[in-house]
Order: sequence, then structure tokens, then C-alpha cells
Amino acid sequence: MADKKKKAAKAEAERVYTDEHAASGLDTALPAIECWPNQYSSNDYWIEVTTPEFTSVCPRTGLPDQGTITIRYIPDKLCLELKSLKMYWLAYRNLGIFQENAVNRILEDCIKACAPREIVVSGEFTPRGGVYSTITANYSRRRK
Amino acid sequence: MADKKKKAAKAEAERVYTDEHAASGLDTALPAIECWPNQYSSNDYWIEVTTPEFTSVCPRTGLPDQGTITIRYIPDKLCLELKSLKMYWLAYRNLGIFQENAVNRILEDCIKACAPREIVVSGEFTPRGGVYSTITANYSRRRK
Amino acid sequence: MADKKKKAAKAEAERVYTDEHAASGLDTALPAIECWPNQYSSNDYWIEVTTPEFTSVCPRTGLPDQGTITIRYIPDKLCLELKSLKMYWLAYRNLGIFQENAVNRILEDCIKACAPREIVVSGEFTPRGGVYSTITANYSRRRK
Amino acid sequence: MADKKKKAAKAEAERVYTDEHAASGLDTALPAIECWPNQYSSNDYWIEVTTPEFTSVCPRTGLPDQGTITIRYIPDKLCLELKSLKMYWLAYRNLGIFQENAVNRILEDCIKACAPREIVVSGEFTPRGGVYSTITANYSRRRK
Amino acid sequence: MADKKKKAAKAEAERVYTDEHAASGLDTALPAIECWPNQYSSNDYWIEVTTPEFTSVCPRTGLPDQGTITIRYIPDKLCLELKSLKMYWLAYRNLGIFQENAVNRILEDCIKACAPREIVVSGEFTPRGGVYSTITANYSRRRK
Amino acid sequence: MADKKKKAAKAEAERVYTDEHAASGLDTALPAIECWPNQYSSNDYWIEVTTPEFTSVCPRTGLPDQGTITIRYIPDKLCLELKSLKMYWLAYRNLGIFQENAVNRILEDCIKACAPREIVVSGEFTPRGGVYSTITANYSRRRK
Amino acid sequence: MADKKKKAAKAEAERVYTDEHAASGLDTALPAIECWPNQYSSNDYWIEVTTPEFTSVCPRTGLPDQGTITIRYIPDKLCLELKSLKMYWLAYRNLGIFQENAVNRILEDCIKACAPREIVVSGEFTPRGGVYSTITANYSRRRK
Amino acid sequence: MADKKKKAAKAEAERVYTDEHAASGLDTALPAIECWPNQYSSNDYWIEVTTPEFTSVCPRTGLPDQGTITIRYIPDKLCLELKSLKMYWLAYRNLGIFQENAVNRILEDCIKACAPREIVVSGEFTPRGGVYSTITANYSRRRK
Amino acid sequence: MADKKKKAAKAEAERVYTDEHAASGLDTALPAIECWPNQYSSNDYWIEVTTPEFTSVCPRTGLPDQGTITIRYIPDKLCLELKSLKMYWLAYRNLGIFQENAVNRILEDCIKACAPREIVVSGEFTPRGGVYSTITANYSRRRK
Amino acid sequence: MADKKKKAAKAEAERVYTDEHAASGLDTALPAIECWPNQYSSNDYWIEVTTPEFTSVCPRTGLPDQGTITIRYIPDKLCLELKSLKMYWLAYRNLGIFQENAVNRILEDCIKACAPREIVVSGEFTPRGGVYSTITANYSRRRK
Ligand SMILES: [Ca+2]
Ligand SMILES: [Ca+2]
Ligand SMILES: [Ca+2]
Ligand SMILES: [Ca+2]
Ligand SMILES: [Ca+2]
Ligand SMILES: [Ca+2]
Ligand SMILES: [Ca+2]
Ligand SMILES: [Ca+2]
Ligand SMILES: [Ca+2]
Ligand SMILES: [Ca+2]
Ligand SMILES: [Ca+2]
Ligand SMILES: [Ca+2]
Ligand SMILES: [Ca+2]
Ligand SMILES: [Ca+2]
Ligand SMILES: [Ca+2]
Ligand SMILES: [Ca+2]
Repeated sequence: MADKKKKAAKAEAERVYTDEHAASGLDTALPAIECWPNQYSSNDYWIEVTTPEFTSVCPRTGLPDQGTITIRYIPDKLCLELKSLKMYWLAYRNLGIFQENAVNRILEDCIKACAPREIVVSGEFTPRGGVYSTITANYSRRRK
Repeated sequence: MADKKKKAAKAEAERVYTDEHAASGLDTALPAIECWPNQYSSNDYWIEVTTPEFTSVCPRTGLPDQGTITIRYIPDKLCLELKSLKMYWLAYRNLGIFQENAVNRILEDCIKACAPREIVVSGEFTPRGGVYSTITANYSRRRK
Repeated sequence: MADKKKKAAKAEAERVYTDEHAASGLDTALPAIECWPNQYSSNDYWIEVTTPEFTSVCPRTGLPDQGTITIRYIPDKLCLELKSLKMYWLAYRNLGIFQENAVNRILEDCIKACAPREIVVSGEFTPRGGVYSTITANYSRRRK
Repeated sequence: MADKKKKAAKAEAERVYTDEHAASGLDTALPAIECWPNQYSSNDYWIEVTTPEFTSVCPRTGLPDQGTITIRYIPDKLCLELKSLKMYWLAYRNLGIFQENAVNRILEDCIKACAPREIVVSGEFTPRGGVYSTITANYSRRRK
Repeated sequence: MADKKKKAAKAEAERVYTDEHAASGLDTALPAIECWPNQYSSNDYWIEVTTPEFTSVCPRTGLPDQGTITIRYIPDKLCLELKSLKMYWLAYRNLGIFQENAVNRILEDCIKACAPREIVVSGEFTPRGGVYSTITANYSRRRK
Repeated sequence: MADKKKKAAKAEAERVYTDEHAASGLDTALPAIECWPNQYSSNDYWIEVTTPEFTSVCPRTGLPDQGTITIRYIPDKLCLELKSLKMYWLAYRNLGIFQENAVNRILEDCIKACAPREIVVSGEFTPRGGVYSTITANYSRRRK
Repeated sequence: MADKKKKAAKAEAERVYTDEHAASGLDTALPAIECWPNQYSSNDYWIEVTTPEFTSVCPRTGLPDQGTITIRYIPDKLCLELKSLKMYWLAYRNLGIFQENAVNRILEDCIKACAPREIVVSGEFTPRGGVYSTITANYSRRRK
Repeated sequence: MADKKKKAAKAEAERVYTDEHAASGLDTALPAIECWPNQYSSNDYWIEVTTPEFTSVCPRTGLPDQGTITIRYIPDKLCLELKSLKMYWLAYRNLGIFQENAVNRILEDCIKACAPREIVVSGEFTPRGGVYSTITANYSRRRK
Repeated sequence: MADKKKKAAKAEAERVYTDEHAASGLDTALPAIECWPNQYSSNDYWIEVTTPEFTSVCPRTGLPDQGTITIRYIPDKLCLELKSLKMYWLAYRNLGIFQENAVNRILEDCIKACAPREIVVSGEFTPRGGVYSTITANYSRRRK
Repeated sequence: MADKKKKAAKAEAERVYTDEHAASGLDTALPAIECWPNQYSSNDYWIEVTTPEFTSVCPRTGLPDQGTITIRYIPDKLCLELKSLKMYWLAYRNLGIFQENAVNRILEDCIKACAPREIVVSGEFTPRGGVYSTITANYSRRRK
């Protein structure tokens, strides 16, 4: 029993994520994502945009994360403009933010920018310590 | 606040897509896609036609885009004739048109040519500035 | 307008598929596909048979087509015998027939031979002029 | 007409599968497949076991067949013990049995051994005469 | 009949899994898996974590097993902290436990740690004696 | 000893290649391979031409062979013209000739057509009875 | 004999490459390839530049060719500037030139631009009529 | 020290290969490999023959080995006849012989059969206990 | 002629690399690469270290480059310590330097750090504008 | 200058490899590798043995390393016995030793065990911190 307590205490002492870490990068201002008017809005269709060169910084270790971000969406009135999207992604280069939060924030920022009918954002990250992680978040205006 | 305004102004000034860009290539006349009479119209079946050699021109930069176009459809009375389809595709070689619009226009032109029961058109484009894009549009006579 | 008419006329003149082409090879006699009694007919199960070495002749150009044919079916009383199926396929080697028609005819000939519960036939053909084509036809006794 | 009759006669003469072939190996005694008590039977979960080294003998030609056998199942009270399963598979090495029958027999023998909730057995065989074949059979206690 | 009995007796004698083997490693204390507060719990999203370097010990032979473990889950209030998860996995390195039990135990320990909305755990193991095995277990709070 | 003799006799009786087979197709007239004047003959450079759709007929079984033929050569005064080369290859479609001989004959016919400085011809054939074969022959004017 | 003559005559009549074709595009003015001063010229090192999006026009058929061009070289005083190289490549988009000549001309134009110590240029083209072609030319200042 | 001795003794006791194992299968009579007269013996060329379906038996464990055998040779007066080679390979199916010895014996038997100018034989075997093995032996008449 | 001059002038005006660009990042101070004493220096052996996550900044455009750096070397007295090497690589993250120069500088800095017997450094970069580039530099103490 | 000194001091303080680390595991006693008499020693031939499941422990961090070890050798009088080799490899599972040293020690231990004519040992390790490493050491009795 004492053993268990000690273990728990030690584990607590070693807790690696603080609340500051967990919230890091969520509110930092980032460049706006421009849009252009969808010419075929009468029909649902999917646009998928992928960058294998996304990189941000881990708020706990200060070391870079590296991964592939994919955005799939059905545009409504607006399509994401690719050059401004690239500039938006580049702004994560020196930003401290957890991978899970980065994917969710990109989802939210794309929704704000173009108000899509459906959207899925995923991030597939290179391994750290032999561990790979992939995060996938989505939003549907209809099912809301 | 002033900072934010400046940013917005700068972003506006840098808007990279104009309305002319967005509509470019939508109404240009293109070669007709020939058809031949479907010999097995009593049964639904899928035909898939793919070219990895599709190329058009970006209306904003004047530089070529390059990608793979795939058409999958259930023919009704008519099948798309492959040689004329190839000639139709070749007409995009020096045409200024956004990737999203090219895929949607190919969809519309195929519907006009052969009035299929179902059809899906997709375009998977080579990367620009580390960003890949894929567009997928479809139409179903039944679900209309 | 005159321009449009000229174009249409020229396109008509260049029509590449005739009705003879479209019907070529549909009625040619082919070797029978033998069958053997299914030993496990009380249970639905799938058999898939594939040849990457299917070849026929394009009725328009006289040049060979080359592709992979796949048959997937749920046998009822009878299973397709593989050696006779191979002989049946070999009979297309010098036969003029469009790819779309070859796939649909194989479907029909297999149905006649073994009366399966379900069957799907597909043909994935090597590229001509940078264009790939795949045809997929199916039949279900139940949904008939 | 005479031509058709001759053809049919010739085909009959060349029939390559006899009834003996078709039933070969169905009743041969094979080693028992051992089981061990499932420790997590309160929850459905899938176990997949694969051997790329399955080999048997074609009853018609006497030549070996070679393929990959995959068993996927939801255990109920019992799990298949892998070493005895391997010994069971090895017993096909010199057994004359058609590929279709081997897959169905393995399905039945696994059901007898461990009475699973769901099970799928497939066999993917190396090509003979340019022809590949894959057989997939399954069983569900619930849907029975 | 005597033959059958003898066979059964011989099989019994050769039984390779004992009850001790079957229960090995199920109750051993393992390091706690830490969690951190999910910042986007208002929305369902998937997190996938994979290690291709999982290794444990077979309780029957004493030899190592080696495989890839994948955890996919929808977090509720908590996300699995990756460094402590890695330490948890490392604790299997010298633990005697069957592959099937390891996968199910990881599922249970993750549920205890972070109470996810949905979770799937799979283990894909390297071959032993020419036999590959994959185990996949899942849990859904909603469908419970 | 008698056993050995019997074996030898049986083997002799079963000899599968006759002299006629071995020489089949070596002297059949084939379409000429056209050439065009090399514009860069002052410099050695390599041209590689490949068809994955080569097919001929086995003189022993009458069944088709299928493979990939590759020609690599350093042109001297002349380059092989691709359309006539394709027609030359098509002439093997119904020709009885062993794979080994086909590759060597293609080598000789190319040498006659364009007198290259160096040339390598290879044929990689699809499996028959679980056996793959590849033949590679070459010629160098300089090392002659 | 008469047969042979007829064949030869017919072949002559069908000659598909004229001298004009063979020389097409060799002397057309193309944009200059800019260079920048090599910062590490004291040591030999290799630079490889590849575009999978090279396209030109076949002077005989007027149809596009599509391929991958790779330049590998050891710079001496100068390195090829990538943006101007891209513009140089784009100038082939509507130029009629044989693949063999395009590769050799790129070699010569790169030599003129940067006078490298060693250089290899290759072009790997997509198939036409089931035939792939690859051309590889090189130059060494030392072995000259 | 005593520890070391004990270890050595234990190791000796556990020696897993006996001399009988090591020599197993070396002298067993196998079917003759037929040959046919090389039609192009004036020129050196390579023939490669591969079977991914080779199987023999481990003399120590009695369990099957499974692998890919490749023979590459320059024929002199004779070429290996493929059907008899296949029968020769099939004779290993129930033969106890180590992998290393099988590869070397195939080399020797091929040399006896066709007296090639050069020959290389390799065997790439599927893993046992997480260990893969590949054996490669060769012979050159010239370098002898 | 005037046309040619104009062209040259325009090209000059558009020169994209300045001397400042070409020298950027060559002299910036970077973290030291630590070493540890080679335990097996009596024998030549190769160590290869690779990071697919190298990133720097293009001095002309200010945009990131992304690539894979590989170092292969034969250590003499010292081996490169991997953690400090990683820190050294991370220092390029916000450094303006051409790809060609980055590879050559890494070569020089590794030579200074561990004085290897042989060393090769390569960088394989992701495409920009459809153009891939790879740079490979090496050094040999012996051949010096 | 002071800045430089500080940096050097800090770097020294952070030195991550001590001499104890560097020598760790070099002298630990490991199980003997058994051998069996080579049956074909009159001819040079290669044996390659690979395990993708090698694992040891980093002496600095205490965390496991994971990789693929390959041994290629020409046997002289003796061949490495695979089961004892596997046991030898398993002894690294909880041994603290650097990757570079592990590869070199395996080389030495194999030379001691079987005195081969030639031998190459390599280790290809999974990434740590985005960095992959591969070590390759070899020995030749002849070139000694
Ligand atoms: Ca994370
Ligand atoms: Ca995944
Ligand atoms: Ca776009
Ligand atoms: Ca067609
Ligand atoms: Ca497809
Ligand atoms: Ca069958
Ligand atoms: Ca198991
Ligand atoms: Ca699987
Ligand atoms: Ca042959
Ligand atoms: Ca050409
Ligand atoms: Ca090639
Ligand atoms: Ca062995
Ligand atoms: Ca190998
Ligand atoms: Ca560059
Ligand atoms: Ca390369
Ligand atoms: Ca290391």
C-alpha cells in the first residue's frame, strides 16, 4: 500500500504537462486565411489540401514537432485561398502548441474563415521516442 | 487594435485571387466530347477513365498546374468516347482556370455529353509550395 | 456561330466509333466455360479469379488492348472451372471488341455458365495515349 | 448446329474435374485444433491469424498449391491455440484438396474447435497459368 | 473410436497452454498512465497513438514477442499523456503475458486512465513459426 | 542400377523440348524496324525503350507467354523509330518462339536495323507453374 | 522476293519521321539559364535537380509528351539557378522536339550555362502506345 | 570460472546440429534436370529462373522451410529446361536438408546438368523465430 | 539582335540570387557538435545518421526549406554524439542559407568536429515549384 | 569572445556521453554462438542472417534501442548455428551498450565463433528524436 502511495506521489511529481502547457498557443494571433467565392456552390464537392511540411514547437520540451496536415471540406460560399493558408501554417513554425491543440485550432480557424458545410482536419506527426501520433477532428454544419 | 487593423489592410492589399481569376476559363469554348451507344444499358456498371497527364494554367501566376484527372460514371444511353475525351482534356493545356473550377467544369461537360446515371470527377494535383490539393465533385441523376 | 457549326461538322467527320465498332465481338462464339459442383453451397462464400494477362483487339484501330480481368462471385450450385475459364479468356486474344463490351460479355457468359448468387467482373486496362480505363459490372440474383 | 454439338462433345471429353476430384480431402482426418480459455469474453474482440506458407496438393494434377490463409474471428469461450493450429495447417502439405474446399473446410474445423461468435477464413493462392484465385468464407453465430 | 480416444489423450498430453499461462500478467501492477485536460472536449475528435516497438514475453516459451500497438480514441475530459504512456508500455518488456491478453489489458488500463468516449486498441505481432497474429479490441461508452 | 536406367529412359520419353521447338521462330520474316538519323552522334548517350505488353506463343504448349521487353542502346548513326518498333513487337503476338530465343532475336534484329555502339535487350516474363524467367543479352561493337 | 520488295516499299511509304521532324526544336531560342557563384568549388560535389512535370510536343503528331527530367552535375565556378532553370523548362511546353533531342539539348544548354566538371541529364517519359522511353546523356570535362 | 565451465557444458549438451543433420539430403537421388540446345551460344547472355514456392524440410525439427530460389547463369551449349527444373525442385518438398546445403546442392546439380559458363544460385527463406536467412553460392568456369 | 540584348537585360534585371544570398549563413556561429571516443578505431566501419526533419530558410524568399540530411562517415578517434548533432541541426531552423551551402557547411563542421577518415553528406529536399533538388558532398582524408 | 567561452563551458557541462557510457557492455559475458561444420567449404559462398527484432538498452538514458541486425559472411570451416545465434542476440535485451559498440561487438563475437573468410555486420536502428542511425562494420581475413 505504502508502495502504491509512493508510486502515485512520484508519478505526480513527474507530471509532465502543466496547465500552461495544455493551453499554450490557443489564443495567439495568427495570420488571416483568405477566401475566394466558390463558383460551384449549387453542388456539394470536396476540396482536400495537404502539407507534409507542417512544423510547430512542443511547449513542454521546446523541441520542434513535424507532421502532415490535411484539410478536407465541402465549401459553401467560400473556398480557402491556398497562398494565405500556407502563410497561416508557416505561423506555427515557432509557436509552442500541443499537436492535439494545433489540429483543433486549425479546424476552428478554417470554420471561421470559410464557414464550410463539412470539414475534417487531421495531423499525422513523425515519431518521438518510438511513438507516432495522429489527430483527426471534424465539423458538420448540418449535423450540428 | 491598430495592429489588427493594419494587418487586415495589408492582407486586403495582398489578396491574391481577383473575381476575374475566380471566373477564368469557365466559359471558354472547348472541343466536344463524343459518345457512342452503350451496348449494355439494361444493367448499371461503372466506367473509370484516368489521365495522369492533365495540365492547365493558373490564372493568377500564369504557371502550369499538373495533375491526375479521374472520371467514374455509370453510363445510361451513351459512353464517353476516349479519343475525343483526350482532345477535350488537351484543350486545358494553355487555358487559365483554377483547379477547383477545372474539376467542376469537367463534371458539367461530361454530364452534358453523355447524361450519365452517376458520375464522380476528381483531380489530384502535384504540390505547389509544399501544398498538395485534390478536388472531388459528383452528380447523381437519381438523387437529384 | 458559323464557327460553332464548322466545329460540329468537323467533329462529326472525325467520329471515331461506328455502330459496327460498337457491336463488334458481342455475338462471336467463344469456348464454353466448364463448371464443377460446389461442395459448400449451404453457405455463401466468395471466389475471386484474376488474370493480369487478358488481351483483346480494339475493333477501331486493330491494335491489341491489354489488361487485368477480375471475377468475384458467390457460387450457387456450380463453381467456374479454372482451366476452361483460361481457355475462354484466351479466345479474346484475336477478337475485335471494345473494353467496355468485353467486361460486360464476360459477366454475361459467367452468369450463363454457373448461375451465381452474386457476381462482379472488372477489367483494368493499360494506358493508351496517356489514358487508363477500368470497367466494373455486376449482377445479383437476389436484387434482380 | 453439328458444330455446336461437336464442340459440346469435345468439351465434355476434356472435362477436367471429376466428382472424385471435387470431393477429395473433405473427409480426411486431420490433427485437432487445441483451444485455451478466452480471458476477455465479456467483450467482443477480433483475433487475426495468418500464414503465408500454406501448401496443399491439387487432386487433379498432383502438383502443389501455395497460398496465404487468414483466419479472423471473435472468440466466445475459447481462443485457437497457435501451435496446434500450425500443426493442423501442416497436415494439408501432402493432402489432395481443391483450394475452394480447403478454405471451407478450415472454416468448419475452426467452428468445431472454438465455436466463435464470428469468423472469416480466406485463402489467397499463387498464380497457375497466369490465373490467381482467392476464396473467402465466413460464419456468424448471430445471423444464423 | 479407440483411435479417437487415443488422439484426444495424446492431444491432452500435448496441451501447450496451461491455466497459469492463460492468466499470466493480467494482474501485475504497471506504471500509471498520466492524463492532461482535453482543451476541445465540446467536439468529438480522434487521437491515434502508435508504437512499432512494443515487446513482451511469451509466458509459455519465455521468448520475447514483438509488435506494433495502436490506440485510437475519442477523448472526453482527459487525453493520454504520451511520455507516461511510453513508460507504461516499457513495463511490458520483461512481463510474461499472451498477446491477446496484452491487447485487452492495454484497452482496460486506458479506459481506467482517461475514460474515453470511444477507444480501439490493436496489436500486430511479428511472425512466429510462419504465423502472424493481430488482435483488435474496442470499447464504446455510448453503446455500452 | 536398373532403376537408374529406367529413370533415364522415362526422362528421355518425357523430353519436352524437341529440336523443332528449339528453332521455332528464329527465321520467320518480321516487319522491318525503321530508323531516323541521330542528331547527337558526337556524344555517347543511352536510349531505353520498354514495353510491358510483349506477348508471344510457346512453341511447345501453344499457350501465350507474356512479359516486359527492354532495349537499352547507345545509338551510332541511327535511332530506332518507336512506331515501327512497336509494329515489329506486335508481330510476335502469334509467333511460336521460346522466350530465350525471342530476346536474342530482338537483339540481333536491332543490331541489323541501327548498328548501335552498345545494346542490351532483356525480357522479364510472367510466371508459369510458379516459375519466373528473365533473359538478358547484350552486344558491344567496341569489345567485339 | 516480290513480296519483300513490296514490303520494303510499303514501309518506306509509311516512314513516320522526316528530316524536319528529326531537327525540330534544335535551334529554337530558349530563355537563358542563370547561374550563381559556387561557394564550395574547392571540393567536387554533386547537385541533382529533378522535375516530374516536364512536357513538350511531339513534332510528328502534335501531341504532348510528358516526363521526368533529372540533371546531376558537379559544379565548377557556377551553380544552375533553379528559378531560371524552371523558366527554361517551361519554354518546352509548346515546343515541337523529339524526346531524344530534348534531353541532349538540355545537356548542351546546361554545359553552356555553367561549364560543369561532370553532368548527366536524363528524361523518363510516360508511355505512348504501351511503350516507355528513357534517354540519358552525359558529359565529362575531364574525360573529354 | 566454475560458472563458465558449467555454461560451456550446458551449451555442449544443447548442441542442436548433429553431423547427421549437417549431411542430411546431400546424397539423396533427385530427378534429372533436362536441357535443350542453346541457339545463341556464340554470345554470352544471362538466364534467370526464380521460384518463390520452394519448400524443403528441416532435418533437425522436421518442420518445413519455405523460400525463394533464384538461378542466374550464362549458358554454354545447353539451357536448363524449365519443366524438368520444376520437377527437380518439387523433389525437395519432403526432403530433410539444411537451407545452406540445399542452395549448394542446387548449384552443383545445375552445373552437372548444363555446364554453364557462369552460375549463381540463391535462396531467400521466410523467417523462423524472427530470424531471416539468405544463402548465395556461385561458380565460374573461367575463374576456376 | 536588339531582341537578344533586351532579353539579356531583362534577364539580368530579374537575377534572383545576389552575392549576399549566395554567402548567407556560411559564417553564422552554430552550436558545437560533441564527440565521444571511438571504441573500435582499429577497424574501419561506417556510421550513418539521418534526419528527415531538417529545415532551414531560403535567404532569397524567406520561406522555409525542408529536407532529409544524411551523414555517412568512417570514424577515426571520435564519433559524432547524436544529441549534440541534433541540436546543431536545430540551429538551421531559422537560418537563411541555400541548400547547396547547408550541405557543404554540415560537411565542413563534421570534419572539424570529429576528423573522420571518410565522410559523405547529402540533403534531399522537398519540391518547390515542381522542382526537387538533392546535394551530395564528400571528403576523404586518404585521397586528399 | 566571452560569449564563445561561455558557450563552450556550457557545452562541456552538458556532455552527454561519459567514458563509462562509451565502454558499457563491451566486456559483459554473453552466451556462446554455436557452429556446425560447413559442408561446402571448397567454394566461397555467402550466408546472410537477419533479425528485425534486435533490442538493447542505451547506457545513458536507460531506454531501449530497437533495430535490425544483419550478418553476411563467407564461411570457412564453420557455419553459425541459428538457434544459438538467436539466444546470443536475446542476451542484449537488457544490456546497456551503445549501438555503435553493439554492432562492432557482434562482429568480433562472430569472428571468434566461426573464423569466417569475410564478414559484414550492420545494425539499422529505429529513430530517436527524429534521428535514424545505421552502423556497418566488416572484416576480411584475406585483406588483413
Ligand atoms: Ca501529443
Ligand atoms: Ca493511421
Ligand atoms: Ca486551388
Ligand atoms: Ca473504351
Ligand atoms: Ca481504380
Ligand atoms: Ca480452384
Ligand atoms: Ca497468441
Ligand atoms: Ca490485417
Ligand atoms: Ca524458357
Ligand atoms: Ca522517341
Ligand atoms: Ca529505367
Ligand atoms: Ca540455416
Ligand atoms: Ca538481402
Ligand atoms: Ca538550390
Ligand atoms: Ca536521387
Ligand atoms: Ca549512437
